[in-house]
Amino acid sequence: MTVHVVTGGAGFIGTNLVGRLLASGETVFVLDDLSLGRMENLQPFATNPGFAFHRIDCSEPVSYREMMTALHCREPITDVWHLAANSDISSGIADPRIDLRRTFLTTFETLACMRALEIPRLHFASSSAIYGDQADCAITEEQGSLEPVSHYGAMKLASEAQIRAAVESGLECADIFRFPNVVGTPATHGVIYDLVRKGIATPDGFEVLGDGTQKKIYLHVDDLVDAMLFIAGHAGGRYNVFNIGPDDEGVTVAKIAEAVRDRVCPGAKIRYGDGTKGWTGDVPRFRYSTKRLTGLGWHPKTGSEGAVSRAIDEIVRQQAMQ
Amino acid sequence: MTVHVVTGGAGFIGTNLVGRLLASGETVFVLDDLSLGRMENLQPFATNPGFAFHRIDCSEPVSYREMMTALHCREPITDVWHLAANSDISSGIADPRIDLRRTFLTTFETLACMRALEIPRLHFASSSAIYGDQADCAITEEQGSLEPVSHYGAMKLASEAQIRAAVESGLECADIFRFPNVVGTPATHGVIYDLVRKGIATPDGFEVLGDGTQKKIYLHVDDLVDAMLFIAGHAGGRYNVFNIGPDDEGVTVAKIAEAVRDRVCPGAKIRYGDGTKGWTGDVPRFRYSTKRLTGLGWHPKTGSEGAVSRAIDEIVRQQAMQ
Repeated sequence: MTVHVVTGGAGFIGTNLVGRLLASGETVFVLDDLSLGRMENLQPFATNPGFAFHRIDCSEPVSYREMMTALHCREPITDVWHLAANSDISSGIADPRIDLRRTFLTTFETLACMRALEIPRLHFASSSAIYGDQADCAITEEQGSLEPVSHYGAMKLASEAQIRAAVESGLECADIFRFPNVVGTPATHGVIYDLVRKGIATPDGFEVLGDGTQKKIYLHVDDLVDAMLFIAGHAGGRYNVFNIGPDDEGVTVAKIAEAVRDRVCPGAKIRYGDGTKGWTGDVPRFRYSTKRLTGLGWHPKTGSEGAVSRAIDEIVRQQAMQ
Repeated sequence: MTVHVVTGGAGFIGTNLVGRLLASGETVFVLDDLSLGRMENLQPFATNPGFAFHRIDCSEPVSYREMMTALHCREPITDVWHLAANSDISSGIADPRIDLRRTFLTTFETLACMRALEIPRLHFASSSAIYGDQADCAITEEQGSLEPVSHYGAMKLASEAQIRAAVESGLECADIFRFPNVVGTPATHGVIYDLVRKGIATPDGFEVLGDGTQKKIYLHVDDLVDAMLFIAGHAGGRYNVFNIGPDDEGVTVAKIAEAVRDRVCPGAKIRYGDGTKGWTGDVPRFRYSTKRLTGLGWHPKTGSEGAVSRAIDEIVRQQAMQ
């Protein structure tokens, strides 16, 4: 019997993970401060007997510990999926205190709770942002100069460091998932979401941040959640670090902009900006090795291009319903 | 004209750095909360017109910011040497909140002050502990799986991550010094200090943590400070990461214990413990590559053996004066 806590479970990836866990008949406690997550994302699960939601700030030591203790007494928690974080990268560059609290301290307090309550397994949503701007080489999990260029990436790397030390001093096991760009719905940010909204707002033409040559890999959230569950079930070590992603060269921003135009506002003029960076902390070209994950036996159903194209459709439908 | 702030400047390494900076005629503001540092260490500088001491907790945002602002108005600060940290590794394993506050948050608040006041240069005391237990390979700065096994190492790696991101969003330049075991005086902890105290207390025989085979490299604090100043003057990049250490195989704990016995209590029986780890978070064998630093033109005056032997003499003298 496994009992799951999903922090940040009302967010984009959290919602999708919670749906999959509930569909397998698991018990899931969702914790979210609703700063970025939304209650409406959880609506489909409201009547599921295995589901419960609690609004809580996971960076606040006292109330978070009390909540976890109460849940743990009700049904012993076996797995924590720590997804709570400030996913709005640019807000963290303007004010690093946001990333400190929402990304780093939520990890610290999660580890403190798990240590106090002897909860065995942690699954952590890390990010390719920990690698920084490593140009065009296929980065492996053993890649050396971890040089995050955003405070978001810094606090994800900082969280990984804490978790590694926790495994040494009591935590039974930890999975570290290094996410690429993840696309799908419910979308709240990201290049596809931005471009779809621009295309709808000004169908004559829209602007793109940067010169359009930024090339990155994209994974559909269905594939991502699938990989997370696969790693949790198959990795077997005490500290398991995995790059999760498609095994391709990625897609340029120009290609995404054209696909959005063709789907949303055919004939619109696309205006490109200057430079290869969309914003401070952006990583213009990004690709990484998923050999460790494919070696374990997992493969994505969809590559970067297919993921982008499917996500455009889904986000267009999401926006039409608002 | 350079004006220096040294956080943790009343500690072991801080005291030695402050002495060198003052000897070169620089202005030095020492900040320390005196939790581990001691006023008596700063006594020799008390009458130096370039020296000032302020007792402050660098993890406390408001008072730290006010202090830095006041100092910066008096004389614009050009360089911050951020040495404040919880150097007591085992206390952080018992309570990770100590490392969070003293090692991680002091770095966060230092960066926040530097950003607000536009102070250009940061020099950071990182640690070989960020590498974790990498057995017997000669670790380079590009080494991949950074896997700290102590909360101390985790918070040092977490601090490096923050600094890297800060360089992307405004900080002019940062030097990251990855320290090996550093020995000399004023000593407050570490294997030599412990063994000298044991040898003095029980001259018939003393115990050693672990089986004595733990082999590590040691650098004398004079060489360390020399390397820090050399890197600050010569590295030239915006983000400069350097392993600092001797270029040798290191010394075993058994060899240190024998040298202490011969110096302090000849004929004493040395009793070894079990296992290759002295304590949780200990790294039994450690060696790393200093090719980047020797390539820049710096070489230590003393190797591991010489550093240990000199430190034993100095610590024996220190203890005799107490």
